[in-house]
Amino acid sequence: MSFQQKLEIAIKKNNSLLCIGLDTDINKIPKHLLEKNDPVFEFNKTIIDKTNNLICCYKANIAYYSALGTKGLESLIDTIKYIHEKYDIPFILDAKRADIGSTSEQYAIEVFDVLNTDSVTVNPYLGIDAIEPFLKRTDKGIIILCRTSNPGASDFQDLITGVASQAHPRGGYRLAPQESYKPLYLKIAEKVVEWNKKYENCLMVVGATWPGEMKKIRKIAPKMFFLVPGIGVQGGDLEKTLKNGLTKEKSGLIIHSARAIIYASSGKDFAEKSRKKAIEMRDLINKYRI
Amino acid sequence: MSFQQKLEIAIKKNNSLLCIGLDTDINKIPKHLLEKNDPVFEFNKTIIDKTNNLICCYKANIAYYSALGTKGLESLIDTIKYIHEKYDIPFILDAKRADIGSTSEQYAIEVFDVLNTDSVTVNPYLGIDAIEPFLKRTDKGIIILCRTSNPGASDFQDLITGVASQAHPRGGYRLAPQESYKPLYLKIAEKVVEWNKKYENCLMVVGATWPGEMKKIRKIAPKMFFLVPGIGVQGGDLEKTLKNGLTKEKSGLIIHSARAIIYASSGKDFAEKSRKKAIEMRDLINKYRI
Repeated sequence: MSFQQKLEIAIKKNNSLLCIGLDTDINKIPKHLLEKNDPVFEFNKTIIDKTNNLICCYKANIAYYSALGTKGLESLIDTIKYIHEKYDIPFILDAKRADIGSTSEQYAIEVFDVLNTDSVTVNPYLGIDAIEPFLKRTDKGIIILCRTSNPGASDFQDLITGVASQAHPRGGYRLAPQESYKPLYLKIAEKVVEWNKKYENCLMVVGATWPGEMKKIRKIAPKMFFLVPGIGVQGGDLEKTLKNGLTKEKSGLIIHSARAIIYASSGKDFAEKSRKKAIEMRDLINKYRI
Repeated sequence: MSFQQKLEIAIKKNNSLLCIGLDTDINKIPKHLLEKNDPVFEFNKTIIDKTNNLICCYKANIAYYSALGTKGLESLIDTIKYIHEKYDIPFILDAKRADIGSTSEQYAIEVFDVLNTDSVTVNPYLGIDAIEPFLKRTDKGIIILCRTSNPGASDFQDLITGVASQAHPRGGYRLAPQESYKPLYLKIAEKVVEWNKKYENCLMVVGATWPGEMKKIRKIAPKMFFLVPGIGVQGGDLEKTLKNGLTKEKSGLIIHSARAIIYASSGKDFAEKSRKKAIEMRDLINKYRI
């Protein structure tokens, strides 16, 4: 079964577009867990047991685990294994990988075979041959960065691009007709739609902090799933995001929330409070899906 | 001491711009090493002992180690530790990391504190705030991807960019004056030069497969060190690269070679053969430095 199929099943079963981010920082988890053998896994497991019927997928950013060394990676491997064994919920690894082809092959082994994720985020800067080793794993979801949620996203993603048709006689470049000018992030969105015709396993990252850009990307990719970070601490606008990003079928968005949900309480009731926050968020999203 | 200072000392001491890539693939190393407790580390250690006075730095791509799971990461950690303890040779971790600021902080911990590298490669697509957590480690070398060595580099890095001054009345964008048009990779090179004024620890990746582009980037950054992959299996042109890339002082390039050197032989003489290949390559490079 493809990642998209797994995702659609979970969306339907739990009536939810919410994705909980297990970006577990050992300095922020309840203190009573620190006496456990693997506090990070223990934290994740408890949250998962309390929230698995409220969401469409889990995501973890590998950086939080890699920062703890090999022990952190063991916690991540155990977390993904636990989800796969116990629940029918797909998992996204946020790793933003990409390198020259032969190296991307190694990254594909890391994320799909060692870590066993259902889906991974990748960075498009190196071009198609850097992404292809991931795309070829057609049962996996490949989520290409299009418009990221951070403030610096505009530094390069907003640059207006055209294709040079020839060098200009007075220096510089003569550009192709103006109709083809568009910001880099839209150029990338168009390429992703093209790649998806062949591989049928592409998604895109579109930050909730850029609802105007979301609208333009949705126009280019009317049916594709978007992973949407940036709600909560980052200040993304949920209402505008949903209005501009939902597909005709009132789906197509994976609304990610990490800190606001998993750190809802630092006491022994942390999982209960996370569940409450997740219900609130799921319901808030569903208001715009009717 | 900064990464650049360490690098310059090693260049002078060994009279070499060569960087050996320890992209060790367990399927390609000599069979007799497989009975060792940690074949990957054993292979690296033997190569390092035979080549450390021929080069200016070692590099490893983390993907080859991550693909082996936590055991692979242990081999990488041990390799870097071995180099630091035994030789005054700086180490580059090729990891092409970058994420939103708070996550890049975690990646900086991964690469500088857990793995203890002197320098790391990063991807610019997310913008300055994604790179800043690395740049702030001013004793470390931050190597930003500018023009990568793979064939797909041209997909996005060659797009001609301008800054939109306003929306065009007939749709699309009106661009700023034509003098400012340039390909994305040159725009990024300009930004790196700007960032370097503040942090003084920037380098760039410029592939040997693009000597024409190398010339343009050198013009923008006359003194900066470039990490140059793409010689050997990838087909980069060493002569043109050196002619177009060397600084006035006949330095400023870190010429990377991995497969051609480390897999020079699959027998028990592998390190001896690697040494021979490294000498050949060092001397070939030095021909253009007189």
